[in-house]
Amino acid sequence: MIKRNTLFTTDVSAYAKGSVISEFGNTKVLCTVMVEEKVPHFIKDTGSGWITSEYSMLPASTQNRKVRDSSRGKVDGRSQEIQRLIGRSLRSAIDLKKLGERTLWVDCDVLQADGGTRTAAITGAWLALRMACDSLLEEGLIKEDPITHQVAAISVGVVKGEVVADLCYDQDSAAQVDMNLVMDGNGDFIEIQGTGEESPFSMERLMEMLELGKKAIELLIQEQIIALIAHNEKKKLSK
Amino acid sequence: MIKRNTLFTTDVSAYAKGSVISEFGNTKVLCTVMVEEKVPHFIKDTGSGWITSEYSMLPASTQNRKVRDSSRGKVDGRSQEIQRLIGRSLRSAIDLKKLGERTLWVDCDVLQADGGTRTAAITGAWLALRMACDSLLEEGLIKEDPITHQVAAISVGVVKGEVVADLCYDQDSAAQVDMNLVMDGNGDFIEIQGTGEESPFSMERLMEMLELGKKAIELLIQEQIIALIAHNEKKKLSK
Amino acid sequence: MIKRNTLFTTDVSAYAKGSVISEFGNTKVLCTVMVEEKVPHFIKDTGSGWITSEYSMLPASTQNRKVRDSSRGKVDGRSQEIQRLIGRSLRSAIDLKKLGERTLWVDCDVLQADGGTRTAAITGAWLALRMACDSLLEEGLIKEDPITHQVAAISVGVVKGEVVADLCYDQDSAAQVDMNLVMDGNGDFIEIQGTGEESPFSMERLMEMLELGKKAIELLIQEQIIALIAHNEKKKLSK
Amino acid sequence: MIKRNTLFTTDVSAYAKGSVISEFGNTKVLCTVMVEEKVPHFIKDTGSGWITSEYSMLPASTQNRKVRDSSRGKVDGRSQEIQRLIGRSLRSAIDLKKLGERTLWVDCDVLQADGGTRTAAITGAWLALRMACDSLLEEGLIKEDPITHQVAAISVGVVKGEVVADLCYDQDSAAQVDMNLVMDGNGDFIEIQGTGEESPFSMERLMEMLELGKKAIELLIQEQIIALIAHNEKKKLSK
Amino acid sequence: MIKRNTLFTTDVSAYAKGSVISEFGNTKVLCTVMVEEKVPHFIKDTGSGWITSEYSMLPASTQNRKVRDSSRGKVDGRSQEIQRLIGRSLRSAIDLKKLGERTLWVDCDVLQADGGTRTAAITGAWLALRMACDSLLEEGLIKEDPITHQVAAISVGVVKGEVVADLCYDQDSAAQVDMNLVMDGNGDFIEIQGTGEESPFSMERLMEMLELGKKAIELLIQEQIIALIAHNEKKKLSK
Amino acid sequence: MIKRNTLFTTDVSAYAKGSVISEFGNTKVLCTVMVEEKVPHFIKDTGSGWITSEYSMLPASTQNRKVRDSSRGKVDGRSQEIQRLIGRSLRSAIDLKKLGERTLWVDCDVLQADGGTRTAAITGAWLALRMACDSLLEEGLIKEDPITHQVAAISVGVVKGEVVADLCYDQDSAAQVDMNLVMDGNGDFIEIQGTGEESPFSMERLMEMLELGKKAIELLIQEQIIALIAHNEKKKLSK
Repeated sequence: MIKRNTLFTTDVSAYAKGSVISEFGNTKVLCTVMVEEKVPHFIKDTGSGWITSEYSMLPASTQNRKVRDSSRGKVDGRSQEIQRLIGRSLRSAIDLKKLGERTLWVDCDVLQADGGTRTAAITGAWLALRMACDSLLEEGLIKEDPITHQVAAISVGVVKGEVVADLCYDQDSAAQVDMNLVMDGNGDFIEIQGTGEESPFSMERLMEMLELGKKAIELLIQEQIIALIAHNEKKKLSK
Repeated sequence: MIKRNTLFTTDVSAYAKGSVISEFGNTKVLCTVMVEEKVPHFIKDTGSGWITSEYSMLPASTQNRKVRDSSRGKVDGRSQEIQRLIGRSLRSAIDLKKLGERTLWVDCDVLQADGGTRTAAITGAWLALRMACDSLLEEGLIKEDPITHQVAAISVGVVKGEVVADLCYDQDSAAQVDMNLVMDGNGDFIEIQGTGEESPFSMERLMEMLELGKKAIELLIQEQIIALIAHNEKKKLSK
Repeated sequence: MIKRNTLFTTDVSAYAKGSVISEFGNTKVLCTVMVEEKVPHFIKDTGSGWITSEYSMLPASTQNRKVRDSSRGKVDGRSQEIQRLIGRSLRSAIDLKKLGERTLWVDCDVLQADGGTRTAAITGAWLALRMACDSLLEEGLIKEDPITHQVAAISVGVVKGEVVADLCYDQDSAAQVDMNLVMDGNGDFIEIQGTGEESPFSMERLMEMLELGKKAIELLIQEQIIALIAHNEKKKLSK
Repeated sequence: MIKRNTLFTTDVSAYAKGSVISEFGNTKVLCTVMVEEKVPHFIKDTGSGWITSEYSMLPASTQNRKVRDSSRGKVDGRSQEIQRLIGRSLRSAIDLKKLGERTLWVDCDVLQADGGTRTAAITGAWLALRMACDSLLEEGLIKEDPITHQVAAISVGVVKGEVVADLCYDQDSAAQVDMNLVMDGNGDFIEIQGTGEESPFSMERLMEMLELGKKAIELLIQEQIIALIAHNEKKKLSK
Repeated sequence: MIKRNTLFTTDVSAYAKGSVISEFGNTKVLCTVMVEEKVPHFIKDTGSGWITSEYSMLPASTQNRKVRDSSRGKVDGRSQEIQRLIGRSLRSAIDLKKLGERTLWVDCDVLQADGGTRTAAITGAWLALRMACDSLLEEGLIKEDPITHQVAAISVGVVKGEVVADLCYDQDSAAQVDMNLVMDGNGDFIEIQGTGEESPFSMERLMEMLELGKKAIELLIQEQIIALIAHNEKKKLSK
Repeated sequence: MIKRNTLFTTDVSAYAKGSVISEFGNTKVLCTVMVEEKVPHFIKDTGSGWITSEYSMLPASTQNRKVRDSSRGKVDGRSQEIQRLIGRSLRSAIDLKKLGERTLWVDCDVLQADGGTRTAAITGAWLALRMACDSLLEEGLIKEDPITHQVAAISVGVVKGEVVADLCYDQDSAAQVDMNLVMDGNGDFIEIQGTGEESPFSMERLMEMLELGKKAIELLIQEQIIALIAHNEKKKLSK
């Protein structure tokens, strides 16, 4: 088994333009895309749109209750890193000019965490983004499809000397090397983030990890398409 | 119809001791109870336990995206009021001495808001609390049932001159009087919060609202029991 | 004795448009109303005015020194609840359209706390508001009186099985049921907030409390009028 | 007239060990001293006590409403400077060893500001401190008088080329040089803070200002003693 | 020796308009001046410019690591006092009208602290300000020299009964009286801040301190001029 | 030229155990290591030490003045990411058990930024860490060398279709792909962070970047050793 089972449940929110619960094994992330008809000041009057992403874990998403950022008065460093990663990954896949002067808010809220929350978030968020853009196109708010490519993500690592993809929490805790890959539908890289905090890793190890990660992402890319087809069929029927 | 349809989906979280998605019409609130084996400093070494509640709205829970408290750096006044209300309501229903020196964290996260989120939260949270206490009893962590009575809540209001219970968002926005009732299984009051910001209301109006609210809560009390029975049956089967 | 002695000392501030020290027994609250010639952004350009209230306790107002909110970096939950209550109560009594595009800042600072600070604050703040509006009318800044009715507030509770109004701190600490009533000059309700955290209360108890509260508020309504007459006489003499 | 009229109204707070409303002209500052039976961690277990001072302006104390520090989420720079100055001035006058392991909280809250709030605060706070120490001595909580000297403060400045003491707000706004002096009962300096932001000043000017300031402080030192005598007489009578 | 050795190393920053490392003995402060082509809102549209100063200590500048303000979430009181002092001192020396609608940001970052960081900062910052204004004049951005006089600062104190200038950390810690003087090129005072927290000081002591401080500042005034000459020569050569 | 010129100036701080100004081209970062004789609570009583890193940019380090984190009240997301990266990289190179119960504070303050500040910081910080550990060994505070390998870092990117190492600011702004590599003395990877926000990149591109980065890091590894030898010689001479 290259990776854990994946499940994308779409249309879970009444108010979001696109919404998906993305499950990688026992990890569950709620991904929603909402549209705001204005842009941050730094791109105002450029005709371009923007994508902002926020990532957060619900208190009951972890074995020991996760303290809310709002109680601590600030977003923790790890969450900031992850939401910046999600934002960059999605912006890489979109022509912001074609979006017009609007912001897409991509919220990824972890319902249950068992490793790989950021990769489940990115993979699900792309789906929600795809659906949100389809809505905008149908409503005539945008003329051309702004999405340029598909985006999916997977974690890979070295656990007890073996290269593994899509690590669950227990594997992640024991990993010597920990890597997250974000790739597009052509098998090109959007992000590589690998850390050998426990022990540095060789070029050979890196190659093995990239190869396994590539295979896992190819599967995700197919699964995203299947989820989209199902969503579109359902939409047709409900009309 | 006295109130909207209610649905309690239990056991939705792998890590919480008790968990419920509480639906009042289109309003959906995730209620979870987690146990922490310590208490806040102000009751330390008293042998007593504690219940703390936090309430929050997910960004996509509202028509216009709700800005996260963590982005604003503080919990907003309305959320604070609601979480204080939830905490008081649940503490009224429990003998904290029998809980032992532990804290029950009750988290109410609004997935979808269409009026009455605080009452859906309280009613669902009591169910999750009941399940969490059952678990603690089964595991032998506590000896005696600490729960002293059932708790449910409903909103009532005056809309276009008519007294209505369980107001949806559109009714709530148009209400002249807005009231939340929290009651126990005996029909006694735990909390009454009524406000006639739009126009003061008479004693007669108050009586009508209390009467309708009482009826709606009687229904909720029955529905909680049915949900508990179903949950317990399911648990037996899964053993 | 239905309630404790009340004293309204008016014109205690040189810069405020209206100012009152409101005493309920040993509780003393400084209530001031200041005018700002602009409105919050959410009602800008609607022609309407606004009332904002802030509530705070001075460090020496309590037996054990009250830590300042500014030292803690945020307004505590209880203060937020109270200032929201004061704001709602006063806004219920005023036609904001007739106020024009200006904000009335109502500040309630507790000089000495012995129970019932929020009700002393509301009752005194209405007086200060009445005086501030009179000033605006005299100065020709507004044409029509924006105030639609009188507002006064009282606490009621159940202490050792007895229904009591205007509880002092010791009674409040021992109360099984704790309720705050805000009413207008016609005996209608503006706010009801009752909590039976210690023990749920019956409909009969509720009726007793409402009855006693109503009587106490009728007295306050008369005392407000007397204070206004005295204030106006004084003003005439000083011209 | 060397300085404006001064009025010290003592015993204005039921809970503080010492309390004074200090008036310098139209400036009114409420000064209270409360005792906490512990010390900050940096002097813990040294046997020594501590004095902490906080300074704040009430919203209605100024012509244009003063925004609360708690709304801004932090103490403003000017307030911090002033409360540090008050703390230093009072600590200079006390033998902290003789205080024992307790903290005296000195709160100075400006009720009305018409220039010289910091000097009215220091002068009144010393009086409140004196009364608080007398109480501690009477109650037997401390054995020896910890106060080593009297403290009073005055502002001096150059307005339209003239040296003036105890400047009101209008003078202060027009001053070319602005200086605050804190002195003891022997005519020695505790603090000198002079600023010629508008224009540098010569040694001769400095001498004139120091001379005038010294005279004004001598008057304050006498007025403090008179206020103390009155307070003590009142206390005797009330026994 | 009236004061410690002083060293001004100029042109240490590629991006600042003026930059100096100011050394007083072992104390080293990096002073930079940057130009922003807008002004704070409170002087907008007055045609006038502004000077804002910020002061901060690097973590390794002190014997025990200095915790960053950003980790604590706020600027500490001492730093605020110092940056307000630097700002006032420099604004006293400049005709803000001649600066045009721009802000000069004066940053003083302490690289190494051994007493007298604020005086080294002010003295170095004036130099950086002088260079920044020369650049603005050369670039034709301003027409007339806005600087009206020279500014330098020194600390003086009483250590073991002796009057000393330019105290190092060990002297400062042992000082009974601690004073900072800011003066201009004519020997006039811009700021005097003296504190006798350890023990009040007499008028005679004050005179001795002022005299010694004046001498030390005269030296600094000369050293600033020498540093400017060297800087200008270097600039000519590099053209 | 594989990379820009590098310069390591050691022993620049009187109070830090190790200190280096690390220059990569025009980028200059002050790296200091200070020792605190306690550890964060999460590893207390484990016998293990800890390394914490903080990264910050001085206001004048950038073309347009960088607003201080302390003014904004929080550390920005980018800085947090970088300091977490520095911390992980250094912790990978040290046996925390051998450090004993103490914390090494690694501060990286950017004096001048022209691209590659995080890689200059890591490379310089390792040097400062090496010197700090040498000091601890000499002083007998630790018995065994805790450092397990050398650490250096470089940026690589694709600019106008070409693979480039050690990008300056202008190259960085124009880069399609942007990657940071942290490696050890054996040519193994500690961290890989690559982002193709502008356009996804192929496996071939990745290989070219890794190869060039590896070469540049080999040079840095040699230059670190040379800097260490010079530092040690200097130390011997100064004894």
